[in-house]
Amino acid sequence: MKLQRVLPILEWGRTYNGSTLSADLLAAVIVTIMLIPQSLAYALLAGLPPVVGLYASILPLVAYAIFGTSRTLAVGPVAVVSLMTASAAGSIAAQGTPEYLEAAITLAFLSGVMLAVMGLLRLGFLSNLLSHPVISGFITASGLLIATSQLKHIFGIKTEGDTMPELLGALAQGIGKTNPVTLIIGVCATAFLFWVRKGAKPALIRMGMKPRPADMVAKAGPVAAVALTIAAVVVFNLADKGVKTVGAVPQGLPPFAVPSTNPDLWAQLWLPALLISIIGFVESVSVAQTLAAKRRQRIAPDQELIGLGASNIASAFSGGYPVTGGFARSVVNFDAGAETPAAGAYTAVGIAAASLFLTPLLFNLPVATLAATIIVAVLSLVDLKTPGRLWHYSKADFAAHVATIGVTLLAGVEPGVIAGVGVGLLLYLWTSSRPHAAIVGRVPDTQHFRNIDRHNVITLPHILSIRIDESLTYLNARWLEEYVLERVAEKPELRHVILMCSAVNAIDASGLESLEAIEHRLADGGIRMHLSEVKGPVMDRLKRSQFLDHLSGEVFLSQDQAFSRLAHDDGSAPVDEPDQWHARGLI
Amino acid sequence: MKLQRVLPILEWGRTYNGSTLSADLLAAVIVTIMLIPQSLAYALLAGLPPVVGLYASILPLVAYAIFGTSRTLAVGPVAVVSLMTASAAGSIAAQGTPEYLEAAITLAFLSGVMLAVMGLLRLGFLSNLLSHPVISGFITASGLLIATSQLKHIFGIKTEGDTMPELLGALAQGIGKTNPVTLIIGVCATAFLFWVRKGAKPALIRMGMKPRPADMVAKAGPVAAVALTIAAVVVFNLADKGVKTVGAVPQGLPPFAVPSTNPDLWAQLWLPALLISIIGFVESVSVAQTLAAKRRQRIAPDQELIGLGASNIASAFSGGYPVTGGFARSVVNFDAGAETPAAGAYTAVGIAAASLFLTPLLFNLPVATLAATIIVAVLSLVDLKTPGRLWHYSKADFAAHVATIGVTLLAGVEPGVIAGVGVGLLLYLWTSSRPHAAIVGRVPDTQHFRNIDRHNVITLPHILSIRIDESLTYLNARWLEEYVLERVAEKPELRHVILMCSAVNAIDASGLESLEAIEHRLADGGIRMHLSEVKGPVMDRLKRSQFLDHLSGEVFLSQDQAFSRLAHDDGSAPVDEPDQWHARGLI
Repeated sequence: MKLQRVLPILEWGRTYNGSTLSADLLAAVIVTIMLIPQSLAYALLAGLPPVVGLYASILPLVAYAIFGTSRTLAVGPVAVVSLMTASAAGSIAAQGTPEYLEAAITLAFLSGVMLAVMGLLRLGFLSNLLSHPVISGFITASGLLIATSQLKHIFGIKTEGDTMPELLGALAQGIGKTNPVTLIIGVCATAFLFWVRKGAKPALIRMGMKPRPADMVAKAGPVAAVALTIAAVVVFNLADKGVKTVGAVPQGLPPFAVPSTNPDLWAQLWLPALLISIIGFVESVSVAQTLAAKRRQRIAPDQELIGLGASNIASAFSGGYPVTGGFARSVVNFDAGAETPAAGAYTAVGIAAASLFLTPLLFNLPVATLAATIIVAVLSLVDLKTPGRLWHYSKADFAAHVATIGVTLLAGVEPGVIAGVGVGLLLYLWTSSRPHAAIVGRVPDTQHFRNIDRHNVITLPHILSIRIDESLTYLNARWLEEYVLERVAEKPELRHVILMCSAVNAIDASGLESLEAIEHRLADGGIRMHLSEVKGPVMDRLKRSQFLDHLSGEVFLSQDQAFSRLAHDDGSAPVDEPDQWHARGLI
Repeated sequence: MKLQRVLPILEWGRTYNGSTLSADLLAAVIVTIMLIPQSLAYALLAGLPPVVGLYASILPLVAYAIFGTSRTLAVGPVAVVSLMTASAAGSIAAQGTPEYLEAAITLAFLSGVMLAVMGLLRLGFLSNLLSHPVISGFITASGLLIATSQLKHIFGIKTEGDTMPELLGALAQGIGKTNPVTLIIGVCATAFLFWVRKGAKPALIRMGMKPRPADMVAKAGPVAAVALTIAAVVVFNLADKGVKTVGAVPQGLPPFAVPSTNPDLWAQLWLPALLISIIGFVESVSVAQTLAAKRRQRIAPDQELIGLGASNIASAFSGGYPVTGGFARSVVNFDAGAETPAAGAYTAVGIAAASLFLTPLLFNLPVATLAATIIVAVLSLVDLKTPGRLWHYSKADFAAHVATIGVTLLAGVEPGVIAGVGVGLLLYLWTSSRPHAAIVGRVPDTQHFRNIDRHNVITLPHILSIRIDESLTYLNARWLEEYVLERVAEKPELRHVILMCSAVNAIDASGLESLEAIEHRLADGGIRMHLSEVKGPVMDRLKRSQFLDHLSGEVFLSQDQAFSRLAHDDGSAPVDEPDQWHARGLI
């Protein structure tokens, strides 16, 4: 059982049969066709030779098929991670140098090790630090950055830059040198691909094709664009007219590569590698969970970390760069009917065959076509409706979203992620540090106690009942002291404070110290402090401290009991209710 | 009113009279006597010329008297901040160089600006990041580090080091060169000061003195040690026997100093300055709050930030180093009867007089005496009971405490604070990411719903009631999806899921997306999702989203209502209860 958890292949492999095989094979063919141009394009986006994209689409898929828990996730190069790789490797060396490639390979290695270690330590919860608004902001901003960065290939000019102002500035400077033929190819390819995405399937159906094959044919659109533009370059000899093509792509299987073990390089790359790991993991897990739920399957997030870690380590040792589970190709895999991770392994075989036999055909492929592929893919990631929706629903989430977009566009991908996490965390800590609490009173003729500001309730001048709507932790320990002591200062006749703990799920050591401090200060003023409705686990823990021994008041099972008992103890006469003596353990 | 909040002096200044004046003056005299040796000693600890300690005890006190809200807080150099200053300035230049002094002054300036800005932006809540266990661990470890670092002066040897292994290694190496006369002075001074702290007051009372004057005389013990050892040096001409003394101390008022504006220096010092600010603020506010509560006064934490910021800026411009509110001297100030911050201003006058007239007397003061003062003061900060208490009460808090102590001792003060905050935050996020939830059922013959694992309750096979004991935020959004969908997967007959939201105080955008995702997935399986006992503010916010429009189920006022209504809707017959139609808005 335990081995099965670490090697999910042992589970699904046992029931593998002919029908699963044929389903997986069909899906693999379709994903392979889609993956070839995409891999080349994303490698280009990462600033790497196109063939590296193919390398990153072979062994990683096999590794994921062995260790991953999603039946339908398709692993490989993706847009956002490619952009992050370009940004990180670009800070080490110039594109095209061996150092740049080494940095990319080392990034994959570090990221793979980090993911695997996080999986083994069950640290998947760390990805929770990325809230939905931060992720969607980051994806939107990355999409805009990526699309803008590819415009240079459409115009046939050279520009550099990691941020929006840099990219736009460089474009404005270089636009005079536009290569008109390249521009025509780029614009046509972009328009064609947009049409393929939106209009091809309906058109094919109108032409009499059935929906499912029409869908499949439409998915092959990018391959058509690749073939058509290669043909155009060959027929019209466009290379002589300044159209930049992919050029010689090495033929053969991925080489055996060794990531750098230079500690200086590691010191420079650990942070980008960590961010790539977390962003990649979050993207991958969201996709995997969505697809799994559709078939009522389940994925194990901590094992997913191990699966993605293995993929990235495999990528590093076969000359690839960081990979993760991609949204578009996973959906294609799912729709094409993949039933097990074996489909990924078959896709790997397809890509390996392509890198063995098809690479010579790519010599004349215009770079502008690949850029068009990227632009069309990433613009679908840009989501302009979310800011308005968030503004309406929650200003804090809106702030985190907009901060992520702004910092990503203006300062780049790494500062963007960090700013998003930082702003999100800061706002969370801020709200956690001032939680909700209410002064409550009894609703007439009931045992219920509600907020005195919202309901018509009964209170007594010598009793203050405070309902605390939050666990008592170090983040709000100081707030609690201030809140209680301020409320007490307003009431001169006070003799009892009852803290109603029905919503207190935990009390940490700082919370306990605050309770003790409040108790001492109230005792100094002749006021007794009581607790009511303390939950079982919280009470168990309080019993392990000395708090209850020193408590000036009592712990009541219910707020109603507390209020009823203390109602008569207003200091005007000695207390001698036998049941109260009993409760104190004096009888 | 608003001006009074920013300048608290306008409030207490209005009622200032003769009796307050005499009380403040008496307190000022006592604090001045205590502060002179302490200031010299802490400057020594910070690696600075002793006179800098006096400079840091003049203008900062005046600034705090104007801007601070505590009536009795005594500001000045303190042990922990001095140690942190030594660590930060030591990374810039060697002790004794002008660059070292400049770094210390710049630290005070940066820290002052940060504190003031945090105050203006009301960021006082950031200090919540330091939990009680982290603070006490840091103080304990700092006390041990400081005491160990001062042993070199007791032995009369030279050592360097920021961490425990470095300090102990250097001591072990240098101990052969111990100066025996210095050692005698150091040990005698230490023993005398320990006795003064514990035994002097009872001894004086036994000799017939009244408790209050006995206490005052005991407080002057350090001054006696200073006087006696100066006398010993002069009488026995100990300087010739290798006893290191303070030497020439410049006479006069603090100079006008200008902090560095070198951006490189700022880049190196901003993090230490931030940590000094936060540690200093937390120490100061805890002391101020404790003392204020004893007299039923209140302090305003955000205004305290401004007060401490002003003090540090004043310190920087008068050649001082970072200051904060100290525990020992504030308690002395309080006990001596200080009634307003004016006592601090009078203390400043006393210290100014000392630096004008007394400094020549300090020429022959042995450094070992100052070291003894520090050792005795800081060892009282070491608290060895807390780890056991925390282990017993909360393993998470214990882990944060021990991590802080360990990293501080082994790697120094800055890594120690950062590790403490990091571990605390990580553990907090970990627990927040997997909150408590319970499957509930109806307690027979009541309207109450309790945990099915703890109580004997009624449930129905087609209804699953889940009580969520936490706000739904991005930290636990993924957990909620997993929790609900796992519970649902176990129940094939299920038709309704009711989420009981009595303990849900907020739902952020990520929580809302999770609810939507859960709802979609349940709907795919033919299960309706309902909410019950949603709090008013949460409901208001949900109404601003489109969640309620798409909800497959209903929102019920109480869990009891939900359970009763849905009890009959088990899918075996069409639902036609009129009130349910009404609730759905269909009638």
